[in-house]
Amino acid sequence: MANSLYDFGMIGLGVMGRNLLLNMADHGFSVIGFDKDAAKNAALESAATPGTTVKGVAELATMVQLLERPRKLMMLVPAGQPVDDVIASLIPLLEQGDVVIDGGNSHYTDTLRRVQYLREKGIHFMGMGVSGGEQGARTGPSIMPGGDLDAYAKVRPMLEAIAAKVKDTPCVAYLGKEGAGHYVKMVHNGIEYAIMQLISESYALLQKGAGLNNDELHEVFDSWNNGALQSFLVEITADIFKQNDDKTTARLLDVISDKAGSKGTGKWTSQDAMELPVAVPVIDTAVAMRTLSGYKDQRVEAEKLYPAPDQTIHVSREMWIKQVHDALYFATILSYAQGLAMLHEASRDLQMEIPLPEVVKVWRGGCIIRSSLLEVFTQAYQQDATLANILLDKGVAYLVQSVEANTRSVVAQAAQAGIQAAGFMSALSYFDAFRTGRMATNLIQAQRDYFGAHTYQRTDMPGTFHTEWQRNN
Amino acid sequence: MANSLYDFGMIGLGVMGRNLLLNMADHGFSVIGFDKDAAKNAALESAATPGTTVKGVAELATMVQLLERPRKLMMLVPAGQPVDDVIASLIPLLEQGDVVIDGGNSHYTDTLRRVQYLREKGIHFMGMGVSGGEQGARTGPSIMPGGDLDAYAKVRPMLEAIAAKVKDTPCVAYLGKEGAGHYVKMVHNGIEYAIMQLISESYALLQKGAGLNNDELHEVFDSWNNGALQSFLVEITADIFKQNDDKTTARLLDVISDKAGSKGTGKWTSQDAMELPVAVPVIDTAVAMRTLSGYKDQRVEAEKLYPAPDQTIHVSREMWIKQVHDALYFATILSYAQGLAMLHEASRDLQMEIPLPEVVKVWRGGCIIRSSLLEVFTQAYQQDATLANILLDKGVAYLVQSVEANTRSVVAQAAQAGIQAAGFMSALSYFDAFRTGRMATNLIQAQRDYFGAHTYQRTDMPGTFHTEWQRNN
Repeated sequence: MANSLYDFGMIGLGVMGRNLLLNMADHGFSVIGFDKDAAKNAALESAATPGTTVKGVAELATMVQLLERPRKLMMLVPAGQPVDDVIASLIPLLEQGDVVIDGGNSHYTDTLRRVQYLREKGIHFMGMGVSGGEQGARTGPSIMPGGDLDAYAKVRPMLEAIAAKVKDTPCVAYLGKEGAGHYVKMVHNGIEYAIMQLISESYALLQKGAGLNNDELHEVFDSWNNGALQSFLVEITADIFKQNDDKTTARLLDVISDKAGSKGTGKWTSQDAMELPVAVPVIDTAVAMRTLSGYKDQRVEAEKLYPAPDQTIHVSREMWIKQVHDALYFATILSYAQGLAMLHEASRDLQMEIPLPEVVKVWRGGCIIRSSLLEVFTQAYQQDATLANILLDKGVAYLVQSVEANTRSVVAQAAQAGIQAAGFMSALSYFDAFRTGRMATNLIQAQRDYFGAHTYQRTDMPGTFHTEWQRNN
Repeated sequence: MANSLYDFGMIGLGVMGRNLLLNMADHGFSVIGFDKDAAKNAALESAATPGTTVKGVAELATMVQLLERPRKLMMLVPAGQPVDDVIASLIPLLEQGDVVIDGGNSHYTDTLRRVQYLREKGIHFMGMGVSGGEQGARTGPSIMPGGDLDAYAKVRPMLEAIAAKVKDTPCVAYLGKEGAGHYVKMVHNGIEYAIMQLISESYALLQKGAGLNNDELHEVFDSWNNGALQSFLVEITADIFKQNDDKTTARLLDVISDKAGSKGTGKWTSQDAMELPVAVPVIDTAVAMRTLSGYKDQRVEAEKLYPAPDQTIHVSREMWIKQVHDALYFATILSYAQGLAMLHEASRDLQMEIPLPEVVKVWRGGCIIRSSLLEVFTQAYQQDATLANILLDKGVAYLVQSVEANTRSVVAQAAQAGIQAAGFMSALSYFDAFRTGRMATNLIQAQRDYFGAHTYQRTDMPGTFHTEWQRNN
């Protein structure tokens, strides 16, 4: 009888759930999936590698009965109410010590609530971020689990088996208490938004500023992916420029609408950063620009009112490509720096004990923001695991300074040419504020005290002060 | 007996509550205030103008008994639980038809909940933003009421009497349903954050870039306040540069800490804008920079690692002052544009029916963001009351274009000189995105479809599409 029990169960057999389960089966685990949709159960079984043990069932209770105890099961259903509905259905079926994993994009506050609710019932609940898209799920995602450490120990062999590997190290680790797994995934997605925005600006700067066509853009991004900018997002961008449309003679990119969608995790990152508070302006900017992309009618109307300046860049094409490369490198580092600073602050503020050195290692492979820069950051955290901001690491500082001048040049030229470079500008202005020991915000404190008696602090003595400001006019 | 009843009651006699009440008494209304603190009651009475009817009491029930019916009373207590506590104390004392106003900085969602809760009990509840600081409350604030229109009619004479006046028009109007008053005040404060950030950047650009001292900065801001930039915030900034420290021989500004505080309404504006969603990147940036100002230790450490570039600006001092003036004018318009676009969207999305033409009229006087630009916007909304974005008004477009080139120049030079100009950059990049009919965000849609099968729309045919993207490497 024991032989017929399955190692792992999955609730929700959409493409992500199915692919994770097949990945697990390929690594020798016997797996069972539940979906109300019989077609999805059939699709799961028919996609299984021959010789692996994969079963799909249409009854939740059936699946739960067929799992080895303590049961280990994951749900991959839409965030929000569906997760609570599944939990409600599961509770009467489970026993103390069972492990339930939410592998979707739940908000960490929901995860925290569920961890505490199920802990009272003796059930281990883990929130787990999974990144890598469909393909990553099938062949090796980056996995960000958080919550109960005992529960992690029970599923660790399976997660390590299916995760992406970098230098034989699986891209999975225990990333902290309570809602930490989903928190880390949220910030991952925030960084993803930022880098995608920066790449889209690089595209505009090269296309509008220097007239590069799609083939040339492919060549540029392909060469960048073989250098310091090596990353998944640069790699697929190179591919995108080559993709032909199957409906017209155009390149596909040229007929895709510029209204960019989102599923909200970038927004969550910015909103939560403000709550902490910590500054993540490149992520904020990426969220704002996706939003503005949706206001198509107003933009088309504005274009008639506001003619663009001459958008030609007045340096050689080779020089411009090099400058944009350096600006992208600079701003990408700044995006990671802001996201990681947010995790540092959130870890302390929300008592999640997020191990930053593990986070950057997990992100090295499998996930959307994987890049060779993660090796640099891994080294930085090996020097100092408590680094508040990676910009304070000497190795990172050396890299940033090597591209600083070209970044300034790109921002200056984009401003003059009227080519929108919101992300590059946010990265540079954050940098210039961050490396300034005394900001001009003393004036803001003076204003607040002047009109609202909000008081201020002094540089030369402790205490809180208020002044009756004199009107001079 | 009727003669001894008071026209208006105030709960909470902090400086704002006291000054509003004294303002009302000066306009012939008999007023009564309640505060548990007997000293505040005494302070209220002793500050009353001779011949006015002003009373302070230490029991809430006493005040309620002494009010003319239907009672009209306002609370000015800290936002959050204290407001709910006051409401709970009031309910057994009030009768159907009484009007209760929350004049504090409550979040509009709390106001919405309270409006609905008290409506069931037959009590009119209004959320009302009040701006102008201590001085404004005493002599003429800008008043932003929203909620029940019948209730507004009952307090309108009092509010019109105490409000600031512009061309004999009182700076108060009914600004929409439910939580609209507090919503408008929240966005007002978001714009206030943005403009304060821009002024602090202008200060840094003039001081670091051209070496202006405090006296020269005073002269510059004073002259600006006599021109197109005429506004309360520019006016007090001119004063601030002149203020001497009473503890040292320094100018006070030079010894004020650069850690800028906040009470959270700017943050609310950004968070809510993302929720709608609408793009308000200058406000986002202002929030981020205040946050970054608090990370003093990290900034001081970073300053040692990252030397600043040569910060000298290579145009004449006069030219630079003119360019910074123009950039501040440009970015100030953009700040209003983003805030007003947010109100436009929120009004529709949250069914608040906010009359934008009234909002800009109310903001012309009394409030922190009052400026001569509000006259321009008033004219724009007279042309088209349904304007989605003031940048689409031809008159505004003319003004924006008159300063566009100098704004580009300031941003370019700030980038090269390493003088942080995050707000100016956000304003310019929003403008450059907004006036672009086709953004580069088609690439973001392509990436999302590539790695996540999130689908995309096309420019040439309706529908939603997904492509199996080809790997070329």
